[in-house]
Amino acid sequence: MGIVVQKYGGSSLSDADAIKRVARRITDAKKAGNDVVVAVSAMGDSTDELLDLAAQVSPLPPARELDMLLTAGERISMALVAMAISDLGFTARSFTGSQAGVITDDVHGKAKILDVTPGRIRSAIEEGHIVIVAGFQGVSQQTKEITTLGRGGTDTTAVALAAALEADVCEIYTDVDGVFTADPRIVPTARKLDRVTYEEMLELAASGAKVLHLRSVEYARRHNIPIHVRSSFSTLEGTTVTGSINDPEFDEGPEGSMEAPIIAGVAHDRSEAKITVVGVPDKVGEAAAIFNALADAQINLDMIVQNVSAAATNLTDISFTLPHTDGQTAMTTLAGLRDQIGFENLLYDDKIGKVSLIGAGMRSHPGISAKFFTALAEAGVNIGMISTSEIRISVIVDQDDVDRAVQGAHTAFDLDADEVEAVVYGGTGR
Amino acid sequence: MGIVVQKYGGSSLSDADAIKRVARRITDAKKAGNDVVVAVSAMGDSTDELLDLAAQVSPLPPARELDMLLTAGERISMALVAMAISDLGFTARSFTGSQAGVITDDVHGKAKILDVTPGRIRSAIEEGHIVIVAGFQGVSQQTKEITTLGRGGTDTTAVALAAALEADVCEIYTDVDGVFTADPRIVPTARKLDRVTYEEMLELAASGAKVLHLRSVEYARRHNIPIHVRSSFSTLEGTTVTGSINDPEFDEGPEGSMEAPIIAGVAHDRSEAKITVVGVPDKVGEAAAIFNALADAQINLDMIVQNVSAAATNLTDISFTLPHTDGQTAMTTLAGLRDQIGFENLLYDDKIGKVSLIGAGMRSHPGISAKFFTALAEAGVNIGMISTSEIRISVIVDQDDVDRAVQGAHTAFDLDADEVEAVVYGGTGR
Repeated sequence: MGIVVQKYGGSSLSDADAIKRVARRITDAKKAGNDVVVAVSAMGDSTDELLDLAAQVSPLPPARELDMLLTAGERISMALVAMAISDLGFTARSFTGSQAGVITDDVHGKAKILDVTPGRIRSAIEEGHIVIVAGFQGVSQQTKEITTLGRGGTDTTAVALAAALEADVCEIYTDVDGVFTADPRIVPTARKLDRVTYEEMLELAASGAKVLHLRSVEYARRHNIPIHVRSSFSTLEGTTVTGSINDPEFDEGPEGSMEAPIIAGVAHDRSEAKITVVGVPDKVGEAAAIFNALADAQINLDMIVQNVSAAATNLTDISFTLPHTDGQTAMTTLAGLRDQIGFENLLYDDKIGKVSLIGAGMRSHPGISAKFFTALAEAGVNIGMISTSEIRISVIVDQDDVDRAVQGAHTAFDLDADEVEAVVYGGTGR
Repeated sequence: MGIVVQKYGGSSLSDADAIKRVARRITDAKKAGNDVVVAVSAMGDSTDELLDLAAQVSPLPPARELDMLLTAGERISMALVAMAISDLGFTARSFTGSQAGVITDDVHGKAKILDVTPGRIRSAIEEGHIVIVAGFQGVSQQTKEITTLGRGGTDTTAVALAAALEADVCEIYTDVDGVFTADPRIVPTARKLDRVTYEEMLELAASGAKVLHLRSVEYARRHNIPIHVRSSFSTLEGTTVTGSINDPEFDEGPEGSMEAPIIAGVAHDRSEAKITVVGVPDKVGEAAAIFNALADAQINLDMIVQNVSAAATNLTDISFTLPHTDGQTAMTTLAGLRDQIGFENLLYDDKIGKVSLIGAGMRSHPGISAKFFTALAEAGVNIGMISTSEIRISVIVDQDDVDRAVQGAHTAFDLDADEVEAVVYGGTGR
């Protein structure tokens, strides 16, 4: 008898009826002969409601207390799911992150899972119970304080439980049918991927695809746990995230054990802003000073571009993108360095979008960049910045051009389905 | 520097503004030079809202999961109170019942506190923090499961913390100005008691006065912790519960260290029902059979009356009162015993009320009963059942007669104040 780990996000747990429906899915898996362990998020928008309450009480609440507050959300949903299961004639035991043995570092608000010690979960399974675990939370190894993993952290909780319990599969239930070749709200003919490698899924998630939390994919790849992303509103098979582009059979094509389509999908992201530092003296250590200051301010950068300097002035421009929520902090930090570094000006633009083409096949197929840029040109989209990885090409474009860029690239790489496949059921599944 | 323990109920924590006001009261106590430990209930009606959610999911939710659910309420309020304190420039640390070392037995829904091991609280105090503790909850010594203490349990949490920390005083903040000689909604001229003994307060609480949870008073008496009941909406001195009717100085009257008024107050309770078992054979073991069956069904009885049997039939009637919420269970239990015991009939009446006169002085003043019954007769109130303790006389009357009975007794024993003293600010403080 195998162990199945399931995860249900807030949009699948929006009210009592939704919770009862989830309980039926869980008991179906139990009836099918599996031991079932479930990670749940907070109900619907309840995390936002708690954040709103906190903002009413204090403009800058202490991170420890914010974690204490937010973890109440999963506590409520896990208890209700356990009750609904019990009402179906099965027994369930709910556990907080701490009780479930989810051990983290001590960074409140974005803790990382260090270890999972699932002693109480194993005991409950052995006693025949279905186990419900609060997602998104853990307990610090050092301080014994309650921590949270950051937005979307329940995906990571589920994968970490699956790894610790050596589960057969980690099923992520959400409000879409799986991972698509593009956002179906922009490209109605986007196709559902039956299978995608960890690396491609990582690039998709990092490039704006919201279906899976980035860190959960990293965790699954490291522990080789297959993730099955599927809808909690239908019984369709979803998308399985498994296998590496570095597996020997990967490049064998249709006859190998894994197909290698050239392009997995087109992702987009409207959450970034661009900062340009104008007129930086082109000498050793200037760039380091800028980026060390931003790192000290805990700002994660995405794309970085430095042009060659104009010979006449020996000055250069440095541009980078970052989450627009960090924009104000970054600008303030850099303005404080103006005299020290001696740059001329700072420019800020948050009306940008990033469009990314992702596919392991681009390693062995030359000309992908050229085809991508041609498609953008034909769609009338101007390219602001370019960045590439082994299996991804990203461009920064005007925010108003994002939809046309995604549609153009999707068509150019023959990703369009013959008919509309996707149904989006609710909000964003976490 | 002494330790002050404070307790704030849900009606004092109804929204963000109320929480900020409570935070100011707490920091005032800290500014005055005290170490401050605070027990909080869930915000406003949030416990009822969680119970409502549970009812929507399952008609009979497992007690373990119900406790898991309900403890989310105090988790939310304690984190918000800690944030509001931090916003005032002080530091606070919130702790769940489990983190605070509140060790209980394993009876979900009405656990009893066995011990308090406040190691983390003491460390936080030593580091200069104000400590906020989730009321109403603990962790089972045996099973390590989360438990709740039952409605009103936060009073008990506060007193237990005060005892474990050897606090100078336990302040119970509520939505009335203190303990009154009667419910001010029925008797507008009720007077606030400056001081009342543990025993009188126990009888008042057991007789329907809702201002303090019965078990908190028992706990305070056992550990000799003074309780100061006062309003969170004003700065008036409230009522101090302290001292025993068995203290040697108690009966010394005005010249002794403690005054001994004859009557502390008139309490009433409309939450009981009366069951009469008609025609019980008057032989050994019949009453035992009835009351053992009710005990097995976990029903707590209050008053019990058995009349002498009529000589002709050798049959007797047995009447008792119980919480009306247990009425259905009790009737079903007894109906199942009909053949075994051979009684004739069962009568059920939930249109009753209990009116109780409480005062340590009645031990040394004869004629109190006569004066009480005369006052009821003059108010036109018929007495259904009578029960007495050393410092209490209770009668069961028609529910419609309760107000007149309370008013008549209050006046007869000279308890009326010259002017209206009481202000009721909100709902019931827990």
